[in-house]
Amino acid sequence: MIQLYTDSSPNGFKATIALEELGLPYTLRHVRIEEGDNRKPEFLRLNPHGRIPVLVDNDTGITLFESAAILLYLAEKTGQLLSSTPKVRWETLQWLVFHASSVGPLIGQRVYFEIFAAAKIPEAVAHYRRLTDEAFATLDNHLATHAYMAGDDYSIADIAHFGWTHIMRIIDFDFSTYRHLSTWHERVAARPAVQRGIALPALATGA
Amino acid sequence: MIQLYTDSSPNGFKATIALEELGLPYTLRHVRIEEGDNRKPEFLRLNPHGRIPVLVDNDTGITLFESAAILLYLAEKTGQLLSSTPKVRWETLQWLVFHASSVGPLIGQRVYFEIFAAAKIPEAVAHYRRLTDEAFATLDNHLATHAYMAGDDYSIADIAHFGWTHIMRIIDFDFSTYRHLSTWHERVAARPAVQRGIALPALATGA
Repeated sequence: MIQLYTDSSPNGFKATIALEELGLPYTLRHVRIEEGDNRKPEFLRLNPHGRIPVLVDNDTGITLFESAAILLYLAEKTGQLLSSTPKVRWETLQWLVFHASSVGPLIGQRVYFEIFAAAKIPEAVAHYRRLTDEAFATLDNHLATHAYMAGDDYSIADIAHFGWTHIMRIIDFDFSTYRHLSTWHERVAARPAVQRGIALPALATGA
Repeated sequence: MIQLYTDSSPNGFKATIALEELGLPYTLRHVRIEEGDNRKPEFLRLNPHGRIPVLVDNDTGITLFESAAILLYLAEKTGQLLSSTPKVRWETLQWLVFHASSVGPLIGQRVYFEIFAAAKIPEAVAHYRRLTDEAFATLDNHLATHAYMAGDDYSIADIAHFGWTHIMRIIDFDFSTYRHLSTWHERVAARPAVQRGIALPALATGA
């Protein structure tokens, strides 16, 4: 049985969506970050960096943190959401890592400086708007000729990007001018497993 | 034959070090970012986001950007630098992604605000020092009981982290108080393939 330690957040949704898509049985462990659950010794034993999600697979003895690694693990465990055709497999992994290293961290920093930082710093806000706009433009151009990130088929690369575009909608970070990215977002959002995944472990409020 | 499009940079070194470790024949294509080579149409056809490194493998027809994806590709192509034992494989991929999404982007942003930003913003500098210190503490604790990121054996996870610790040494971002991280850095730096990799396509100056 799989146990998923998570909270209602962009990176958490990547794991819940994937598990719902794959229909794998799992137990949800709600790590309430606002209450400091992620700093408790029992959680730090699972991820010493104190971040969610963490997956524990009792069938294999594997404990894993970092959402992109979890997505790859679940895809390889099931043989789903990641093509075995080399060209498509590497296209998928490329756009998965593009999210993990180039898109997600930039949106995260933009959210910090626009919403959470005590001091409002126009230069920092402008810096992250410019970098996230550049990433959205790259994705928008790519999706102009591809239904999904890796081509014709929905994959873990789509789930990774959707985790953040979903939160952007909630906190009113408008990306509607990126027409192909918006159309892709609606296409992914319409999936029943995605709708279930974004409500776990609780509905996101953007707080 | 493999072609590597790269410049002298933290992410570029990850690819050159891996290729040197693996002894794979490859052609180096120097993309001079300072001269805008990464914005030329012929390069944007390889990576529409305009970043190095990009790997083109003529043997398989695969073109790939994002250094973590390239490291995984080279490991799977050769069966080296990534254990096939599930526990070690996923430990390696976890620390590889930890670098790609949680360490590398934060150091990159710290370098931007401490060195390159036109305006010096104390709050932004302090923010990224705090986040990078937190990441270094996590790595340091991990390396207190592990010779390498994934345990006993050197892997693509070490190469990923070394790309940035090497640059930190050059630009005098001191991490010597993280004793185990520093010892690990010296251990990796002593490898002949690493020494060759960091001099390609040119010696780094920190500029």
